[in-house]
Formats: sequence, structure tokens, C-alpha cells
Amino acid sequence: MAWLQNKGLKRIFSGIQPTGIPHLGNYLGAITSWVKLQEECSSVLYSIVDLHSLTIPREPTVLRTSILDVTAVLLACGISPQKCFIFQQSQVPEHAELAWILGCLTSMPRLQHFPQWKVKNASQMNEGTVGLFTYPVLQAADILLYKSTHVPVGEDQVLHLELTQDTARRFNKKYGELFPVPTAILTESKKIKSLRDPTSKMSKSDPQKFATVNITDSPEEIMLKFRKAVTDFTSEVTYDPAHRPGVSNLVAIHSAITGLSTEEVVRQSTGLDTAHYKAVVAEAVTEKLAPIRSEFVRLKEDRSYLEKVLWTGAEKAKELAAPVYSEIKRLVGLH
Amino acid sequence: MAWLQNKGLKRIFSGIQPTGIPHLGNYLGAITSWVKLQEECSSVLYSIVDLHSLTIPREPTVLRTSILDVTAVLLACGISPQKCFIFQQSQVPEHAELAWILGCLTSMPRLQHFPQWKVKNASQMNEGTVGLFTYPVLQAADILLYKSTHVPVGEDQVLHLELTQDTARRFNKKYGELFPVPTAILTESKKIKSLRDPTSKMSKSDPQKFATVNITDSPEEIMLKFRKAVTDFTSEVTYDPAHRPGVSNLVAIHSAITGLSTEEVVRQSTGLDTAHYKAVVAEAVTEKLAPIRSEFVRLKEDRSYLEKVLWTGAEKAKELAAPVYSEIKRLVGLH
Repeated sequence: MAWLQNKGLKRIFSGIQPTGIPHLGNYLGAITSWVKLQEECSSVLYSIVDLHSLTIPREPTVLRTSILDVTAVLLACGISPQKCFIFQQSQVPEHAELAWILGCLTSMPRLQHFPQWKVKNASQMNEGTVGLFTYPVLQAADILLYKSTHVPVGEDQVLHLELTQDTARRFNKKYGELFPVPTAILTESKKIKSLRDPTSKMSKSDPQKFATVNITDSPEEIMLKFRKAVTDFTSEVTYDPAHRPGVSNLVAIHSAITGLSTEEVVRQSTGLDTAHYKAVVAEAVTEKLAPIRSEFVRLKEDRSYLEKVLWTGAEKAKELAAPVYSEIKRLVGLH
Repeated sequence: MAWLQNKGLKRIFSGIQPTGIPHLGNYLGAITSWVKLQEECSSVLYSIVDLHSLTIPREPTVLRTSILDVTAVLLACGISPQKCFIFQQSQVPEHAELAWILGCLTSMPRLQHFPQWKVKNASQMNEGTVGLFTYPVLQAADILLYKSTHVPVGEDQVLHLELTQDTARRFNKKYGELFPVPTAILTESKKIKSLRDPTSKMSKSDPQKFATVNITDSPEEIMLKFRKAVTDFTSEVTYDPAHRPGVSNLVAIHSAITGLSTEEVVRQSTGLDTAHYKAVVAEAVTEKLAPIRSEFVRLKEDRSYLEKVLWTGAEKAKELAAPVYSEIKRLVGLH
């Protein structure tokens, strides 16, 4: 990647919410790009952003399990604690501390127009919490705390990153040059759709059975979900998302999993009807996910190892955060 | 005080913003009551709430000076680090951390109706910051972090304390019984008025010259300010706040400073005209503040002592905060 010409001067930060096992869409989008980035940049931080996940009500036991599950999934997918810092946000106090300071630089009207706030607040009967509303401010703190220069984001996070950029500029102007203005790395969203409703994104929170393939699903579960995948009444395999969203979603998954183009995947499937094609895609997905699943199962048994990984990651993150936050406090006048 | 029958079970928390030298009204109200409370309760925390003071734009150098000035004033007024914990809020990370968690329990509509937010937001052309808006949530965190049972507050803070009480109940209900629901101790507000406009409160931010007597004013400054105090065209000294606010304010100050009733003070002043009476009150104020002023001047020279007091106070506060915050994280599911 062109922007990584000078390895030493870059720092990448990204976060993932511990809201259950990541699904196939997460894997083919963010996680695969995270694995690549850790090879290409010498300073990479990936945070399990548990404080963010509190902005929607969670059961404590579910949250606790999710934090370790997501850690295990990331490691199983190839994220390496030797190549990046992987840590739990709430173990580094400076995230919340900096969020307060940045909140004192952010006007209320600036936050009121975020589409995500509007949608989520509406879904909570307009009783959304202060946490949900100020989410983008904590996100800015996450990024700026490490003087991050690059942030892999999906398209739906571009507006949030703009707030971070504005906040960095505002801080620098008011208190003195400190923060780089971070640049977005748009992670190629593979736009994996629900298997039950191929017009909407695959989602962890989809209430429909069989709609979402989790990274840790068993071969049987994967096969069943693809068999139940909604397609249409044409049996031929073609790629035409506008008119044939169901089968096109299968082609897109197949393409992303194999690394082949959609055209190539379609060509290879000539003569197959969609029922058989479903089995082919399920097979390819199973093959890709099988080693990840078995590594996940192994890691999940080893809770103390997972906790040690997170603890070590947090210690390293704190070492980076402490001098930055100390400088912030000095500039602001707190010491 | 009746509520302090069982000393061991009480914990008092209160905070003061580092926004310049406290004035006579602060002294006769909050500070005097703080000095009393440290004698009556075995566990008392007084925090210089610097994170709160960021909710209105501050110059960093002014803020830094104010933090030490307020510390020096409190010590000079008799607050004793042997009898209470006196510390700087930003030195205890758990305040901001808990504020995030409590913000995830507080709905936006719950905050929108606070009169202080409305007034201050209007004064900032409706561009008030997230910090200003979420101020009461940080205040709840300040109090609950220490499982405080009692909070000395002025009348203008009663609504804020109600939010803290609600938040404690909401947390306990959702996550399990942890926080005492803190009780207000209404500090007798002495209702000291501006010397230039005796219909409004004495205030640090009053732009009028001679309106505000600071605790550290010199005898000459005190004399001058009282000489310029607005009264009326009747020369007699009476206490009649509704019809004679100016002279009644002098009587109120005189009464509070001497500990005598307003009737007694008026009786002693029979035969004096207001011009002479101003000198009498100025004299009484000077006498009370002189030792405080000289101690303040001495302490202000000793920056390293002030910093040590704050550092030691923060260490002690952290010792109380750490196990509580750890338990909060466990209950919420963060570990």
C-alpha cells in the first residue's frame, strides 16, 4: 500500500466491539484487512472496545464471555500479539480520561446529526443514553491517545473519523500542535449480505435463524445455513446483485473466500444449479473456516492464556498512552 | 449533627472547581461548612474538580495556577490533610472511567432539562459542549466512586444530586446492590450578595470592579470594596433585605463573620450611619481573613508542598477508589 512507504512513521489503530462471535462478513471485511495491516506496519493497535459496547444494554455475563471470544477469534484468524498490540479498551484508563477532555472541545450540535445516533436512538424509543450519544467522542479518544496516523474504517465509520480529525485540529489549534490528523484506510467492505434477506447486510444482531454465518460455526451449521439461503427461481449461477441479490451474494462470498474474481467464480460454476452451487460455496467456506474454528476451540479452553494476551497488550498500550496523556494534561493545564 | 450519630458508617464527598480564588461568599458558605464536617466525620474527601472546570473554556496557565491557589486557600482556611483527603480529580483516573459507565445508564432526556445546562448553554450561543452537558454524570461518578453516603451541597446543586441518587438506584437495580444512595447535606448558604448589586449573588465571575471580596484580598482592598458598596439614602443600619438589600447584605456579612445574629449586629450598630458601618464591617472581615491571607501567601510560595499534599491525597483517594471500581467492572461484565 502506497501510504505505508515510510513504515516507521505510521501508527494504526482500530477497534472491534465484543458483541458476540464475529460473522463471515466481519471476517472477509475488517478482520482479513487487520491481518494484512499488521504485516505492513510496525506499529499497530487493535482494541476490543468494551466501553463502546456498553452504549447498548448488555448482560454482564454475556459481555464477559464476548470479550474472551472475540480475543480468541482474532488470534485464531491470525492476529498476532507479536506483530501488534491487542488489548481491552477498559484496561487502559486514559481512553475514558481523554474522552472527557475531548468532550469539553466538542459542541452538542456537532454530535446531534450523526445518522447512527439518530437510528439507534429511534430504536431505543428516543431514550438513547449519554454513552450512545457521545460514542464518537470516545472513538476520537481511542485514536488520538496513541497519536495514530491511520485508521482502518468501514464506510459507515467515515463520518465518525471526520469528527476525530476535526477534534485533532481543534485541540492542536487551542492547545498547541500535538495530534497527527489521522487518515482513513477504507477497508474494502465485502458487502456480505444476510443469507435470509440478501438486500440487507449480514449482521450479528439479525434475529432470523440461518441468516448469519459465524466464524466459529461447525461444518454442519455452515452447510445448513447455505442450504437455507434465499435465492430465486432461476437455477443458473450469475452475478447480478441488482436483479438476483440472493445468488449474487453467494457468488460474492465465494469470490471473497477463494480470492478469485466474481467472473472467474461464475465461470467455474457453469452448469451447476443454485442448489448444488450452495453446497460448493458452503464447502469453500467450511474449508476456510475449519482451521480457524479448531484454533478458536483450542484457545477458548485456555482462558488464562487469553487473559494474559490481553493483559500484556494493555501493558504495552499503556506505555504508549501514558506519555501522550501526560503531555495532554500539561497542555490543557491540569498539571 | 444528627445524621452523624454513627461516625464510622459515613463518608462525605464534596468538590470545588479551580476557577480562581474563592470569595467571601464561598468562605462563609461551603468552606466553613467543610472545615466543620472534617471534625465531625472520620471519612471525608474534598476534591479540586479540575475536569469539571474544563466544561467552560479555560486558559491552561490560569487553570494550572488556580488548582494550586484553591489548594492553598483551602489549607489556609483550615482544611487539614490529616483530617480529610484533599486531592485533584484528574489525578484519579477512575472518575472519568466511571463517568463513561454511568453515562451508559443515563438517558439523554434525563439531562436535557437541567436549568444550569439551559442557562450556560444559552450563554454559549447554544454551542455548549458535551462536557458541559454531561457535567452531572461526572458529578455522579465523583460521588459514587467512593460509595459516599453524604454530600454537602448548595441549593443550586440539589437537582444534580438527585441525578446521582437516581443513578445509584438504577445501577443497583441493573447490576446488583453496590452504591449507597447518598444524602444531601444542605450547606447553609449565607446568601452573600455582590457589593455592587446587592440583588445578585456574590460571584467569582462578576465583571464589576469592587463587587466581590476575595478571601486573599489585602486589608486595603477589603476596605476599598466595602467603602464602594452600594447602599441607599437612609443612613440608619437596619436589616430589611426586601427593601434595603445593600445595607442588609452588609449586616448579613457582619453576622456571618462574627457569628452573631443579625438582630445583635444591628443592635450593636445603633447610632452608626452606613458610611461608618461599612468601615466596621470591613474591619471585621479583615480581622477574620488576615490570618488566612498570610497563611495563603506563605503556602503559595511553597509550590512543592502544595503538590505533595495533592499527590498524597490522590494516592489515598485511589486506594479507596480502586476496589470499588474493580467491583463495578466485575458487575458490569468488563472483567
